[in-house]
Amino acid sequence: MISRTFITLLAVLYLSAVGTSADRHDLRLPVLPDYQIILCDLHSHTVFSDGEVWPSLRVREAFQNGLEALAITDHIEYQPHEKDLPTNLNRSVQIAAWSAKNYMITLIKGAEITRDMPPGHFNALFLNDVNPLKTDEWRDAIKAAADQGAFIFWNHPGWRGQQPDGIAKWYDEQTEILAKGWMHGIEVVNEDEYYPEAHQWCLDKGLTLLGNSDIHGTIAEQYERTPAKHRPMTWVLAKENSEQAIKEALFAHRTVVYWRDWLIGEKPLLAEIFYNSIKLPRPSVQLSSADGAPLKLVNTSDLTFELAHGAIDAGLEIPESVTLPPSSTIILPIQKKKGATLPQMVTLSFVVANFKTAPNQGLPIEWKIAVE
Amino acid sequence: MISRTFITLLAVLYLSAVGTSADRHDLRLPVLPDYQIILCDLHSHTVFSDGEVWPSLRVREAFQNGLEALAITDHIEYQPHEKDLPTNLNRSVQIAAWSAKNYMITLIKGAEITRDMPPGHFNALFLNDVNPLKTDEWRDAIKAAADQGAFIFWNHPGWRGQQPDGIAKWYDEQTEILAKGWMHGIEVVNEDEYYPEAHQWCLDKGLTLLGNSDIHGTIAEQYERTPAKHRPMTWVLAKENSEQAIKEALFAHRTVVYWRDWLIGEKPLLAEIFYNSIKLPRPSVQLSSADGAPLKLVNTSDLTFELAHGAIDAGLEIPESVTLPPSSTIILPIQKKKGATLPQMVTLSFVVANFKTAPNQGLPIEWKIAVE
Amino acid sequence: MISRTFITLLAVLYLSAVGTSADRHDLRLPVLPDYQIILCDLHSHTVFSDGEVWPSLRVREAFQNGLEALAITDHIEYQPHEKDLPTNLNRSVQIAAWSAKNYMITLIKGAEITRDMPPGHFNALFLNDVNPLKTDEWRDAIKAAADQGAFIFWNHPGWRGQQPDGIAKWYDEQTEILAKGWMHGIEVVNEDEYYPEAHQWCLDKGLTLLGNSDIHGTIAEQYERTPAKHRPMTWVLAKENSEQAIKEALFAHRTVVYWRDWLIGEKPLLAEIFYNSIKLPRPSVQLSSADGAPLKLVNTSDLTFELAHGAIDAGLEIPESVTLPPSSTIILPIQKKKGATLPQMVTLSFVVANFKTAPNQGLPIEWKIAVE
Amino acid sequence: MISRTFITLLAVLYLSAVGTSADRHDLRLPVLPDYQIILCDLHSHTVFSDGEVWPSLRVREAFQNGLEALAITDHIEYQPHEKDLPTNLNRSVQIAAWSAKNYMITLIKGAEITRDMPPGHFNALFLNDVNPLKTDEWRDAIKAAADQGAFIFWNHPGWRGQQPDGIAKWYDEQTEILAKGWMHGIEVVNEDEYYPEAHQWCLDKGLTLLGNSDIHGTIAEQYERTPAKHRPMTWVLAKENSEQAIKEALFAHRTVVYWRDWLIGEKPLLAEIFYNSIKLPRPSVQLSSADGAPLKLVNTSDLTFELAHGAIDAGLEIPESVTLPPSSTIILPIQKKKGATLPQMVTLSFVVANFKTAPNQGLPIEWKIAVE
Repeated sequence: MISRTFITLLAVLYLSAVGTSADRHDLRLPVLPDYQIILCDLHSHTVFSDGEVWPSLRVREAFQNGLEALAITDHIEYQPHEKDLPTNLNRSVQIAAWSAKNYMITLIKGAEITRDMPPGHFNALFLNDVNPLKTDEWRDAIKAAADQGAFIFWNHPGWRGQQPDGIAKWYDEQTEILAKGWMHGIEVVNEDEYYPEAHQWCLDKGLTLLGNSDIHGTIAEQYERTPAKHRPMTWVLAKENSEQAIKEALFAHRTVVYWRDWLIGEKPLLAEIFYNSIKLPRPSVQLSSADGAPLKLVNTSDLTFELAHGAIDAGLEIPESVTLPPSSTIILPIQKKKGATLPQMVTLSFVVANFKTAPNQGLPIEWKIAVE
Repeated sequence: MISRTFITLLAVLYLSAVGTSADRHDLRLPVLPDYQIILCDLHSHTVFSDGEVWPSLRVREAFQNGLEALAITDHIEYQPHEKDLPTNLNRSVQIAAWSAKNYMITLIKGAEITRDMPPGHFNALFLNDVNPLKTDEWRDAIKAAADQGAFIFWNHPGWRGQQPDGIAKWYDEQTEILAKGWMHGIEVVNEDEYYPEAHQWCLDKGLTLLGNSDIHGTIAEQYERTPAKHRPMTWVLAKENSEQAIKEALFAHRTVVYWRDWLIGEKPLLAEIFYNSIKLPRPSVQLSSADGAPLKLVNTSDLTFELAHGAIDAGLEIPESVTLPPSSTIILPIQKKKGATLPQMVTLSFVVANFKTAPNQGLPIEWKIAVE
Repeated sequence: MISRTFITLLAVLYLSAVGTSADRHDLRLPVLPDYQIILCDLHSHTVFSDGEVWPSLRVREAFQNGLEALAITDHIEYQPHEKDLPTNLNRSVQIAAWSAKNYMITLIKGAEITRDMPPGHFNALFLNDVNPLKTDEWRDAIKAAADQGAFIFWNHPGWRGQQPDGIAKWYDEQTEILAKGWMHGIEVVNEDEYYPEAHQWCLDKGLTLLGNSDIHGTIAEQYERTPAKHRPMTWVLAKENSEQAIKEALFAHRTVVYWRDWLIGEKPLLAEIFYNSIKLPRPSVQLSSADGAPLKLVNTSDLTFELAHGAIDAGLEIPESVTLPPSSTIILPIQKKKGATLPQMVTLSFVVANFKTAPNQGLPIEWKIAVE
Repeated sequence: MISRTFITLLAVLYLSAVGTSADRHDLRLPVLPDYQIILCDLHSHTVFSDGEVWPSLRVREAFQNGLEALAITDHIEYQPHEKDLPTNLNRSVQIAAWSAKNYMITLIKGAEITRDMPPGHFNALFLNDVNPLKTDEWRDAIKAAADQGAFIFWNHPGWRGQQPDGIAKWYDEQTEILAKGWMHGIEVVNEDEYYPEAHQWCLDKGLTLLGNSDIHGTIAEQYERTPAKHRPMTWVLAKENSEQAIKEALFAHRTVVYWRDWLIGEKPLLAEIFYNSIKLPRPSVQLSSADGAPLKLVNTSDLTFELAHGAIDAGLEIPESVTLPPSSTIILPIQKKKGATLPQMVTLSFVVANFKTAPNQGLPIEWKIAVE
């Protein structure tokens, strides 16, 4: 047959070309009061550098995976297909535009500055023209991106291809780039790797947290549609889903990284996601006439929450830990200690172990519960 | 080891006995303006008639399956285990009560009057005492239920054990029972069977639609947690989740039957579910400067919607049919016919084929879309 | 990072480049006495015509899907990417060769002659050089393939792009091509379509049956790893897995098409697959002292078998139909008719409904069972 | 409706009662030269002690889970249902017999002697009559089992209900029981717990290794049909599937415990399973003219194999670890070290990390490979 993508070039068969792509599964997330959560992957490759897919497929895959925005960031200096595909650094994004419009994906024009470590690889997003970034000197390349107002981040700082021990290291070059205002964020997650050092640097230096797939082959061969194995994402908390609003949010550090069943982000953002996801239909327990009573917790989101209990009111016993799978209801059994007298209100404190506010730090939360 | 259910009888181990039953998966449904949707199974058996599970397991299974209310309706006249379990018709519900309280399941005391056809089997719900229903004459049994204010419905009218051709038949006995005010609903779905004749009778005679599992073994061996293979349910649209509110709603016919990927119910209820489930983030298409344009449909529920298009505005072409899987976004491609001039607003009309307002009748819906 | 495929060009990192591709799932099939079953897809596209993947990905995908041989058959006359990828008709197979060697996939060099209907599209396999097939006249193109000893088959004869009613039609051109010895087989299955007319033509004219994916995008977005939704395949019954042995088998018509849960093929081949897949550990039933007794059937393969019973010995009752899922054991309940006297041996006759020996014809099979 | 189990009591409806239980999925295991692998669960409960299912369901569940033999081992001293089900210690197995015959499951009559620690709980299998085991003194109970020739094993020695720290402890009572010849094995796995101390005791004292579910509720709510989450099993390597042969094998210590993706057993048995599961279709690598070459490993079983490489021939590099999922083919990339000269045959040594021959000890294996 003839591929669906090209059928449109032959005739006015818009219907057949777009199809009704029924297999997009949306990730259900809470509605936040001030921002939309825009699901992004800000690092991806096509056949126009060393990827193995045509740009149209990269966009359709993003749609099927539930993303709302995608950056195509082909390598500038690494073009192993150039014998077959003569270099045009703007071409992959140009080809992807038709698909992006029809799948309603916000397409971000990017490029990967691909240099030895230090300083390593950097992504530049929101470029007008990639060609000025093709320079001999890496400083010139990053400057050319900055001159276009690009959002620039350091990629996979602990990648074993450049750091054989897998540990991210901060070089003088990094200090220089940061001082010049050329580094706005760091990938704390790339593909299946998490870099705790980079996580701490972002906190210390006020940089934006990023987590991306850096996909070269296909998402389907590396990831699944499960909380534990999904494609890594950068969630951008933006005023709306547009290139401009995403750019504003990135520069303002309003991101959360979604990796395995972790959320990595600043405490206020994670807390907002938590309290808007978990509902207590009736925040009270009937303990006056019984030794134990159930408390119902409802997880309205597609996220997993791993709660470990923290300090606890004297007189109460609760399970040491509890997991709320996606879209589930949990009965939390609450038990009165033998002979205890309870106040009218008790506080249940937990740490959300898989919500990382810093390396090895979960998000503390609490609920106040009436005792009936 | 020792079973979790009984550990509580030994000591004050409330925590261990209830556990944190993490595997309850909730079905995401739209929030309706006037009523809660209470997920019920109103027909089930335990070892106290011919079922194969202890009452505590029947309740825990209901919780795990996402139900909010369960009726245990053991056979009165059919007690094959009586040699081992001497009959006590109120006992299964009595045993189930502890589990129901702790899993926060609304437990409804019922019984199945189990007679030859006609008149066949009837379930009576909201009983105080099952014993008066144990009579020689079927009329006396149904009357004894009615005298307790029970909600009474005719079970599986086309069951092949009583109707070898699988076709439900209306007998003089049914006319009599209805005239006496003893029949308030009919099972249009039982286990994996749908009875179109019964569906029509409910519409014609103003009876409540019911769909139940009639489970004897375990839900897990017969059903899956997928839209196509889930346990059949009666959804009761009630003011709150309480026995009293469910009873009021059943007598008021506010039910929807959920079977495979079908919803069976009255047109206004199904329409309310539809329009609260499907969102159009931007109800407009940019067709002034293009031959085709995408329209985004978002299914925020865990239901499947199978749309077949109905009458369509002159000048437009849309796909003949489109399926919206649970929690998905669909891009509906809309194409302008060659040379057509479009009005400022167009109407897209569909029939939701799997929402059955009558045998073989889907629910008609429409959207008005701006043309930019 | 840098794509795995290209890492080898940088350094002697053979290990990293090939990886250990753990996600290949093998389809378990019976061992046949005379031939190996070679799982093939003989119709696929890459970015070098209108496909959306680089040749290396097409090969890796074939490995992951459990295939043992793959033909890449890019369109000759349809080259929508040619602005970016200047045409070289031999290039996609040339690039794929490195991957094929390392994933131990037998790679077959093919091309798709892409003409209006009649005569439509034809695949030519086992080519040395595709360039001579690029001609103005379709006869010259097919002849050029035949001159290289190619195995040539007619593709998707009922494709709606060329047959709007979806029904395959036989033209004078087809008669001519067949008479000249230029047509050796027909696709009875292409992507998700089955053409019963083509199936009958293969039987009538002694042509090889083929079933292929004709994949342009990715297998993962269209298919699943389930019996009902797997990628369509041509199984070639060959002396060994080599290009030469596959070619010999194709010319000798030793193929079976695997589509959904169907096998399409000649009766002897399907019977051989059946009897080598299903085992009766103890072919006897103890009916002398009971009304009913179980018979155990074991499906040792990953195929599904749908048995509908045929003529049956007087005195016996068995279920009307029975399905044996992949890798399962079934207990077939056998019942003696009331008052019947049984012989020492009885015959159970079935039709394997999903093994198609002709359009609408299943495979008849039988077992002889001792009565104890 | 009326439950399938009881329909047979009403009429000669053998067919309907047994049904065709299509959902049994067999675990594919290698064929061993001397023994059959009989999949057993030797510890289970029904409503006749503190279980939550009727005996017929316990048997059907065993069939559906692919088991070939099941022991029902209701508690003797713990009968929380006795108010409803007056005690008859032989009754649960008696009821299960009809189902066992029709599902062709070997049913083993057992009982659980349920005492405080020490000596804790013991299962006795192959009993004729459970009643003599109901004694005041635990010694009398175990002796009564031994007098019937029972196979007796110590249950869950580290169960937190009796050992709050989860660590199995050996008491004087254990020494006494062993000395009297009353203890033939120990559960090294019970439900989701593994007891390394018990594993070592079995090795040191020549006791049979056992691993069982100890199921009270349903298998479906605790386990899945995946290698990582399946029901724990004791595999008995017996001459045939019969009660007698299973008993002989248990006394002869021919068992392997299957838990999560682990096999726990003696080295020769595990080695036999390994070498009969993994095939090398062509045990050679073409390294004379290349730096690297692929070696194909085929896992023909439904087991998972986690290989970590051991000592390795100078001159070769292979991946540090490789996992072979069920029914998969792996390409093992083998690389020649720079400048190395290789002998004609090389040895690849691995440890199968998930095949436990002792606590923390995997199974060493090796292959000899030709260098071409």
